[in-house]
Amino acid sequence: MSEAPVALPKSIPPKSEDLSAWYTAVCLKAELISYAPVRGCVVLRPYGYGLWENLQRELDARFKATGHENAYFPLLIPESLLTKEAEHVEGFAPEVAWVTHGGGEKLTERLAIRPTSEVTIGTMYSQWVESYRDLPILINQWANVVRWEKATRPFLRTMEFLWQEGHTAHAGAEEAREETLKMLGVYEEFARNVAALPVLSGPKSASERFPGAVETYSIEALMPDGKALQSGTSHDLGQNFSRAFDIAFTDIDGAVKFAYTTSWGVSWRMLGAVIMAHGDDRGLRIPPKLAPIEAVFIPIVRGEDRRAIDRAHELAATLKRSGMRVRVDDRDQSPGWKYAEWEMRGVPVRIEIGPRDVDAGSVVLVRRDLEKGMPDRSRSIAVDALEEELRRSLELVQESLYAQAKAALDARIVRIVDRDAFFTAARDRVGMIDIAWCDRPECEAHIKAECSATTRVLRPLDGDEKICVACGEPAKVRAYVAASY
Amino acid sequence: MSEAPVALPKSIPPKSEDLSAWYTAVCLKAELISYAPVRGCVVLRPYGYGLWENLQRELDARFKATGHENAYFPLLIPESLLTKEAEHVEGFAPEVAWVTHGGGEKLTERLAIRPTSEVTIGTMYSQWVESYRDLPILINQWANVVRWEKATRPFLRTMEFLWQEGHTAHAGAEEAREETLKMLGVYEEFARNVAALPVLSGPKSASERFPGAVETYSIEALMPDGKALQSGTSHDLGQNFSRAFDIAFTDIDGAVKFAYTTSWGVSWRMLGAVIMAHGDDRGLRIPPKLAPIEAVFIPIVRGEDRRAIDRAHELAATLKRSGMRVRVDDRDQSPGWKYAEWEMRGVPVRIEIGPRDVDAGSVVLVRRDLEKGMPDRSRSIAVDALEEELRRSLELVQESLYAQAKAALDARIVRIVDRDAFFTAARDRVGMIDIAWCDRPECEAHIKAECSATTRVLRPLDGDEKICVACGEPAKVRAYVAASY
Repeated sequence: MSEAPVALPKSIPPKSEDLSAWYTAVCLKAELISYAPVRGCVVLRPYGYGLWENLQRELDARFKATGHENAYFPLLIPESLLTKEAEHVEGFAPEVAWVTHGGGEKLTERLAIRPTSEVTIGTMYSQWVESYRDLPILINQWANVVRWEKATRPFLRTMEFLWQEGHTAHAGAEEAREETLKMLGVYEEFARNVAALPVLSGPKSASERFPGAVETYSIEALMPDGKALQSGTSHDLGQNFSRAFDIAFTDIDGAVKFAYTTSWGVSWRMLGAVIMAHGDDRGLRIPPKLAPIEAVFIPIVRGEDRRAIDRAHELAATLKRSGMRVRVDDRDQSPGWKYAEWEMRGVPVRIEIGPRDVDAGSVVLVRRDLEKGMPDRSRSIAVDALEEELRRSLELVQESLYAQAKAALDARIVRIVDRDAFFTAARDRVGMIDIAWCDRPECEAHIKAECSATTRVLRPLDGDEKICVACGEPAKVRAYVAASY
Repeated sequence: MSEAPVALPKSIPPKSEDLSAWYTAVCLKAELISYAPVRGCVVLRPYGYGLWENLQRELDARFKATGHENAYFPLLIPESLLTKEAEHVEGFAPEVAWVTHGGGEKLTERLAIRPTSEVTIGTMYSQWVESYRDLPILINQWANVVRWEKATRPFLRTMEFLWQEGHTAHAGAEEAREETLKMLGVYEEFARNVAALPVLSGPKSASERFPGAVETYSIEALMPDGKALQSGTSHDLGQNFSRAFDIAFTDIDGAVKFAYTTSWGVSWRMLGAVIMAHGDDRGLRIPPKLAPIEAVFIPIVRGEDRRAIDRAHELAATLKRSGMRVRVDDRDQSPGWKYAEWEMRGVPVRIEIGPRDVDAGSVVLVRRDLEKGMPDRSRSIAVDALEEELRRSLELVQESLYAQAKAALDARIVRIVDRDAFFTAARDRVGMIDIAWCDRPECEAHIKAECSATTRVLRPLDGDEKICVACGEPAKVRAYVAASY
């Protein structure tokens, strides 16, 4: 089918002109979210929740394959428990929502809505662990958490959000460190292969560490405006929480020791990165593995000839039986309107069927990842080969979205050795700025004050540079510096 | 293998002597739950959460097959919203936990932690619905809710619990009523075929209705102590919520009308019914379709001959590849100890392998649903037939647990026509007492005051009885009366 020229839905400004306005508009217009009647919160509508379900299924399978089990811990945390680990409470107390009344009475102790569950889970682990035989404990929780936020941006910053939090306890420091890195690796692989997001990963600086952690690692995606988006974190908590919560065990040698714990989490924020990194002026472009709808049929009616609708439903039913997520749009709208609508919603492949296709036993597959006029964007295929060809097209879309995002990231990793050039680049948000760095909190604070950027992840020194680009002190590490969401 | 006589784990009292003590002990000892550090709450441990995951998967598939989609709505509800529907707030306000402080400040308006989500979802539907084309809306949410409770019993009564709540909006009253009954039917089928629970279902009396509903239907299971356990409810909300929240639409005839809404829910309470109905003196008996572990291998080591352990792991790996949920217990404990342990945990089938089985290429399957000495309880099978025979055994256990529960329910449905006999039976908790009833709240209040029992579900009058057994007024319906959890 040839495409009639169609005006973009008026309510979506082009992404290339105003990322922020585009982002909010597409989240609403594609019906991923609605703003909720309680401040700072959003409703995840069915199409948005479909993204979350696919993320959950893919991550959950990876957690189970690495030996983790799911469990559920309470929403509410007594104040006395939250204050047991000093750095932790200092980090989270300002963001806590407090329950003070229940069952018609004022409570004798305030209850925090969990901002994260280390303290509850630490308390339980102290009860469950007696001997080295009880270790490791490898548990994950899918849950909602609340952190009081001043501003709201769908997926990126909301008062309540959905996430998973893994919490493990180990007999030795090395094993805990390995777990922390293993789960960082799971996140990195998930980002690459499911979310089609290339990320930079590594340890965080001391200032950017999780409150109470010995070491925090993260994966960082780069957004089109040059800002980084932290998309997953993995924390080595050492013995900080096991000492605070008395997670002690009798080791094989009879000595009583504190366990080593880790925690790691990914939230619906990752979906914000997916939306922002892959979208284009026409709307969302959803990686097939996350797409609630992998392909949409657009049957084309010519006068009284409505055979395409029946054919579309037949083909869709067959694909659904094979476990594919497809839909037929048989609404009373023009094909051009539907093309624009489903492009805006980011469905990876559309399947056009007109009367001539019905006669010829063919359909036309059109990929969402490619621009109009590009050679592989659309092709006519025989209906007998539909499932195979559709699966192949979905793989190609998945790979192509990753390749495009990878090229965009690579183009914006900039190695800088000059001090002035560094501060200018950081202010201008050119991307991930790669510098030799001193690893000092004072230097990080200065960079943050000067250009609202921070180190995102660190890595070992390489090459000849021995001086911190930002301050001239001796360099200890290399750092990627960027402004961040 | 012959079974060594093994003492029951000391901490579980026999179910037949003290149901309540048995229930609490088995929930803790089987590691379904732990008590949490916040009052009224429990932790769902991995084995307990495994039950919930299976319940979720089975119910979710049924919701999707009936056209529903999942979404997620906020945890917190502004007070002004909760009070919009008069009966609803009256019913729930006494149970609400209130957030009064957040982000270090006192809030200008209190926020309720959702006890249920009708008011938030009603608010959103009023925004999403404009025309009859936007209807029906068929949405389900998997979520946590909080209701302030004085007492705590694992699964049955906790301050926070996990559940699903379906919320739908329709153009017509008849369609909403059909939806309400359809989802009641889904619950009934799920209870029977997955949870192996026979239930009585039907409309509730006016006093037992959901606050704000026009009609509430429920499914009711019977526990061994003669008390009913409401295991799922489905509410026809009529236009009560659509008027309160302005869910109005322009119909095909151009007239603006209020929608008709429904809501329906099942919580982890259903798992309490599963535990209590099926368990025996030795512990849990979990229906295979809900079992986190469908079968456990117990390899038997004789002196240096440890081949059974390797064989068990090989066979388990093969079964896992076929998607079966199996585990090998290769711990350094006696077989008898392990038999008692896994019987207590309710694993439907155990698979014994000793050195002679290794030689013979066989294993012994032992079913959890049958008593020692019963002819079909254990049998030796060839390893080549293991998957097929195991699947068959699991089906038999599933069917047999249902049959046993059905026989127990049928034996305790008692039709009574005499007033004194009725009050005595209700006080004595003989089971589901089937009476002709007047359908008057005053009569229900009297029954409740006299014998702590209520009507569980109603059905049309049949037979010759025309007088209410409880009060002598004209009978309008038949009612099942029982004390309840």
